[in-house]
Amino acid sequence: MPEYPTALGASSRHTITLLGQDLANDVMGHVGFGELAFWLATQRRPTPHETRVFEAVLAALADHGFTPTAIVTRLTYLSAPDSVQGALAAGLLGGGSRFLGVTEDCGRFLHDVVVNAEALPTDDEGWDALARETVTAQREAKKLIPGLGHHVHKDGDPRTPRLFAIAAEEGLYGPHLSLFAAIGRVHPEILGKRLPLNGAGVCGAALADLGLPLELLRGFALLARTAGLIGQLAEELRHPVANDVFLSVDLNNRSVAPPIDELKSYGGSHHG
Amino acid sequence: MPEYPTALGASSRHTITLLGQDLANDVMGHVGFGELAFWLATQRRPTPHETRVFEAVLAALADHGFTPTAIVTRLTYLSAPDSVQGALAAGLLGGGSRFLGVTEDCGRFLHDVVVNAEALPTDDEGWDALARETVTAQREAKKLIPGLGHHVHKDGDPRTPRLFAIAAEEGLYGPHLSLFAAIGRVHPEILGKRLPLNGAGVCGAALADLGLPLELLRGFALLARTAGLIGQLAEELRHPVANDVFLSVDLNNRSVAPPIDELKSYGGSHHG
Amino acid sequence: MPEYPTALGASSRHTITLLGQDLANDVMGHVGFGELAFWLATQRRPTPHETRVFEAVLAALADHGFTPTAIVTRLTYLSAPDSVQGALAAGLLGGGSRFLGVTEDCGRFLHDVVVNAEALPTDDEGWDALARETVTAQREAKKLIPGLGHHVHKDGDPRTPRLFAIAAEEGLYGPHLSLFAAIGRVHPEILGKRLPLNGAGVCGAALADLGLPLELLRGFALLARTAGLIGQLAEELRHPVANDVFLSVDLNNRSVAPPIDELKSYGGSHHG
Amino acid sequence: MPEYPTALGASSRHTITLLGQDLANDVMGHVGFGELAFWLATQRRPTPHETRVFEAVLAALADHGFTPTAIVTRLTYLSAPDSVQGALAAGLLGGGSRFLGVTEDCGRFLHDVVVNAEALPTDDEGWDALARETVTAQREAKKLIPGLGHHVHKDGDPRTPRLFAIAAEEGLYGPHLSLFAAIGRVHPEILGKRLPLNGAGVCGAALADLGLPLELLRGFALLARTAGLIGQLAEELRHPVANDVFLSVDLNNRSVAPPIDELKSYGGSHHG
Repeated sequence: MPEYPTALGASSRHTITLLGQDLANDVMGHVGFGELAFWLATQRRPTPHETRVFEAVLAALADHGFTPTAIVTRLTYLSAPDSVQGALAAGLLGGGSRFLGVTEDCGRFLHDVVVNAEALPTDDEGWDALARETVTAQREAKKLIPGLGHHVHKDGDPRTPRLFAIAAEEGLYGPHLSLFAAIGRVHPEILGKRLPLNGAGVCGAALADLGLPLELLRGFALLARTAGLIGQLAEELRHPVANDVFLSVDLNNRSVAPPIDELKSYGGSHHG
Repeated sequence: MPEYPTALGASSRHTITLLGQDLANDVMGHVGFGELAFWLATQRRPTPHETRVFEAVLAALADHGFTPTAIVTRLTYLSAPDSVQGALAAGLLGGGSRFLGVTEDCGRFLHDVVVNAEALPTDDEGWDALARETVTAQREAKKLIPGLGHHVHKDGDPRTPRLFAIAAEEGLYGPHLSLFAAIGRVHPEILGKRLPLNGAGVCGAALADLGLPLELLRGFALLARTAGLIGQLAEELRHPVANDVFLSVDLNNRSVAPPIDELKSYGGSHHG
Repeated sequence: MPEYPTALGASSRHTITLLGQDLANDVMGHVGFGELAFWLATQRRPTPHETRVFEAVLAALADHGFTPTAIVTRLTYLSAPDSVQGALAAGLLGGGSRFLGVTEDCGRFLHDVVVNAEALPTDDEGWDALARETVTAQREAKKLIPGLGHHVHKDGDPRTPRLFAIAAEEGLYGPHLSLFAAIGRVHPEILGKRLPLNGAGVCGAALADLGLPLELLRGFALLARTAGLIGQLAEELRHPVANDVFLSVDLNNRSVAPPIDELKSYGGSHHG
Repeated sequence: MPEYPTALGASSRHTITLLGQDLANDVMGHVGFGELAFWLATQRRPTPHETRVFEAVLAALADHGFTPTAIVTRLTYLSAPDSVQGALAAGLLGGGSRFLGVTEDCGRFLHDVVVNAEALPTDDEGWDALARETVTAQREAKKLIPGLGHHVHKDGDPRTPRLFAIAAEEGLYGPHLSLFAAIGRVHPEILGKRLPLNGAGVCGAALADLGLPLELLRGFALLARTAGLIGQLAEELRHPVANDVFLSVDLNNRSVAPPIDELKSYGGSHHG
């Protein structure tokens, strides 16, 4: 009979523990929600400094208005108002490679460089040299730098300098943020144009500097977004727009005869 | 062309606002994550008192060990490790009527009584009278009282007195908690047995006293659980158990000939 | 150690069985997909007559153009193209009470009447009498009749007479369809207006006459819709529209100051 | 105002079309469900030969007993019985890279070889030569061959020869199946051991030979699995096991102090 060890929630007739703590007396009323989320993910209680940076990241990622995830949650609630869990889950399912993935991609990308560096730089000049190497290598491999560029904030994403500043204030400006900042300084000389360091990217760098598991960086973006999607549902309850969205698509459908265009890939292209 | 008004996230080339605030300067670094989630759901910034009660509720609901939702998230990650969003979404889909629904059911139940009362009681005696009426009516309708009873914590759920105490400390012990407490006092004389007020129920009462939208009480339980499920995934990365869970079921399957038992309901029972 | 009996799939080193059959030799190549889905749900192989009615229902429910579920699947794929399973799951989550629920609601409604009738009618006159009772009772309870009315097909839903005809051809015009047809005949004299019997409703009646489990009628609608959503994804690959849908919402957002309208329900209304 | 072209479902007051056909008269009662799913995905009506191969693939993939996806659907239904759509969606979310991905991976892998071949072989000898090249290249790149190997059916997967035979009977044994068969013949001389061609792999090869879009091969596996998961839910209604599964895990939890093992990756490893 297998056993399933866990350090998370456990209960007996008279006690409930969470992370080895007495839930009622030592967690409830004492531990903030951001702090708890960090603790659950790392099994280590964060310092107030770490909590402040972590919660700043969650704020940066919570809601970006009518993103596909927000529209999806509202449409799903329109269609299945009996299931709040379904509406939230549907919205989270859009949290993949394209819209929420930059945070994770950027954290992983920076981490790969950091762990493979022979020695970490100790000053800006050193970070700039490492960043030059990194950007040059990506360019030669014809790959993009995760976290660089933004389709709206072309002159700079307001979240980026703010998160650098908060991390510095809290003594948590570590190697990932250092490398990301250096990429921001040196990339124009290599790429021939200046791109902004975007907010999703700096969040990935900050989460990596907090020592959070890289495999779950997307998970923290999803946690932030869950709060945002609840906000979207609450606003939909106050002032519904999902039916208008639905009708704006349905009433502008144009029925055409099949096949509508060619399939881009077609396994059978070699037939006959 | 329809327009879609929103007070949540918005951005232009140089600015990002959230809830009408400057996201970078006035939210990041200043607003905790629990506080922000409350603000997003109500479009009103909570007081520190409200935030403390709200975060105590989230802590109470974040993780209860190997619940079906936790097992589901781990199994889905085992099966599709390429999609963290899918593993979290799958876990949240278990947040329905049975396992996470008590919070919502209890909040709604208490609220129905509170809004239909001619005048709200002003002392314990008055609340006891209203609670007696309420419990008697449910009993006559052969309905259960949401939030009453627990299959493990038969002598009392440790979270319940703690949340009452925190709400009282913060001046947020409102009508829903008052009625719930009174139900706890009077039900034995009507039902003939003493049942504990459970933690999920008191959380619903506290959330209703915070003025959160009743339609979304389940949503807050799901937000708390998202943090818990990230903890489950992080632990699965450290010490995987999902494959053992899977094998413990698959290796103990017993193949039988169909049909395995009768269908409980069968539309065709009147055929022939 | 618990054991888990099942009559579905099972395998050993040299064999694979499904529903007690040799999967490779007796199912593959011999059993159509609709037939198999019926068999899996009932653990009884359907007759060709039953299969034809069942597949007609699935065809009726597979795709209705740019429904919320279709839009959701396309938007989720736009946002997370790495996860086809997420895009399909998100679309299915809209299959709740409002858009796909009529099939289940109608099947259950008819079944309640049928199983509670003292004796089932044997001719149209008898069914009309039972239908009059049923419609009158619903009207007095101020409840709607599931399956009656359609916002587009006001003069009649083309699927309805067709499914009645197919069921009759196959000898599967049972009590649920009989009652539904009678409701179509008698309701104008009671409600004072003529409403069409809609396609989702007649599908529920036909599935109930097939003896399928009422708890899962929504499941068959979801199975049909899965095929439709794959069609939506395939078309999105050929001719993408999801980004235009997203932009049509995002570019027409109107940022307003919070709070945007009052919350419809507000637990805290009794505060202070 | 954007327009959204579609060749799928469309309706007006008196008509409903699907794929340019009159849904009621020309699809319902005439088109089987497997045939319809193929048509929806390709916008081309399959021949009866193609339908038979396609439905054989769906049968092969519909249900494999107590897989993680099946367990997840049952546990989610236990936890949220109010939402059949949630239980099915949760199960499908396990249809990712590990458990259902082989079909897609194998189809794509074979297709890459086929489209990059200068000329396609015309006899077994030619296919064997191409297969030798392919297996050698994978081996040198230290990559696995998708579709090769099975942890249970070590002497051969019964579905594999059967699907080859059905495709041959229907005249649909195309380049993907030819290459896959050749890989089965030649790999032992290169890898030094004989592995079975597994069922998921041969399904991918057959779907590719049917000319279905490679991006959606996983989608067809998910369609098949939807039918299987409805079967799992129907069986759970007849003979529930999910609560026993849950308890078998929960009762065998072993509460340990955090941290439970080290995180495998840890962004902060360079701190300090």
